[in-house]
Amino acid sequence: MKPLFITFEGPEGAGKSTQVTRLAAALAGAGVPHLLTREPGGTPLGTTVREVLLDPALTIDPFPEFLLYSASRAQLVAEVIRPALKRGETVVCDRYSDSSLAYQGAGRGLPEALLRDLTREATGGLRPDLTVLLDLDPAVGLQRAAARGQPDRLEQADLAFHTRVRQGFLALAAEEPARFLVLDATQTPDQLASSIWIALEGRLN
Amino acid sequence: MKPLFITFEGPEGAGKSTQVTRLAAALAGAGVPHLLTREPGGTPLGTTVREVLLDPALTIDPFPEFLLYSASRAQLVAEVIRPALKRGETVVCDRYSDSSLAYQGAGRGLPEALLRDLTREATGGLRPDLTVLLDLDPAVGLQRAAARGQPDRLEQADLAFHTRVRQGFLALAAEEPARFLVLDATQTPDQLASSIWIALEGRLN
Repeated sequence: MKPLFITFEGPEGAGKSTQVTRLAAALAGAGVPHLLTREPGGTPLGTTVREVLLDPALTIDPFPEFLLYSASRAQLVAEVIRPALKRGETVVCDRYSDSSLAYQGAGRGLPEALLRDLTREATGGLRPDLTVLLDLDPAVGLQRAAARGQPDRLEQADLAFHTRVRQGFLALAAEEPARFLVLDATQTPDQLASSIWIALEGRLN
Repeated sequence: MKPLFITFEGPEGAGKSTQVTRLAAALAGAGVPHLLTREPGGTPLGTTVREVLLDPALTIDPFPEFLLYSASRAQLVAEVIRPALKRGETVVCDRYSDSSLAYQGAGRGLPEALLRDLTREATGGLRPDLTVLLDLDPAVGLQRAAARGQPDRLEQADLAFHTRVRQGFLALAAEEPARFLVLDATQTPDQLASSIWIALEGRLN
């Protein structure tokens, strides 16, 4: 059984963390060796960079913002993801490079070709085998996120921004239908977990 | 009088800070409006990134290291350097993109073309009018830096690395002799300050 690299994408409040946890439990139940990680984060450097990116007190322009995400990603791929895949572990990552293309590209308007080139360098070309996109109306996502407490820097951005991000994600999914599983995030956690497991089972064997 | 963008480069322990301070005093004495800054740093984001880069406890691979420097640089150019030049102030910056080419390129072996492309994006193509390279034998520089206290992550790197960095700086200077002023950093602070001021006076008028 070839280890898989699975990523979760979508807006804040779409339920990514819940589904990552559910998937981990399902993988454990099926006896599939696996590793959970997330972006930005997943390494000591990534955790530090995550705090920087989410600090509402800092001014961070779009390009430096992208560079910080890429720094965290490059370290995560080299230090965690590639070694795990090499050990035969399936890797589940909460956010990956599609988030940069959607947030910094579609959302903030940075040129997509530049983001793609730099992402290729940062990841050494490592791409997911399966990307689960939890699609959600931005108004609903922001409401859910706000209900969880103080909004961070990302969540303070306006609705128009989040609408562009959603369109960015959907465009990426349309470009690579074989890689993406697009799910309506308003479904129940059970429904979502079931759809994800079915899509995964086909790929695991 | 056109405002100038002046950068200082060279290894740790070459006396850059001293000369930056001396130059600021000379500019003040001559009535030239100016601004001092440094890399990484110079903005709230840059100061935070500087702490990350110099933390000996963090593992940072060469490419993410370069991305962090570039993030700090991009923010500094947009938030501080370009606005100052626009206000007519001469900007003096302690380290700039030549450091990335020397340390991450020549030193760590990252491909130079990639570093140059990304630097052009990060800076919007802003290049110094004058770059003062304080050239020093790495063995002497490390000794000087160590005498100032606990060595940071950069200073712990080995002598072979610092030798490649020195060659990298000298190669950049050889490529652009009109931009670079290369000085032997073992001269006295007075001698160095005097050479720098002479080179600058020609460009200020």
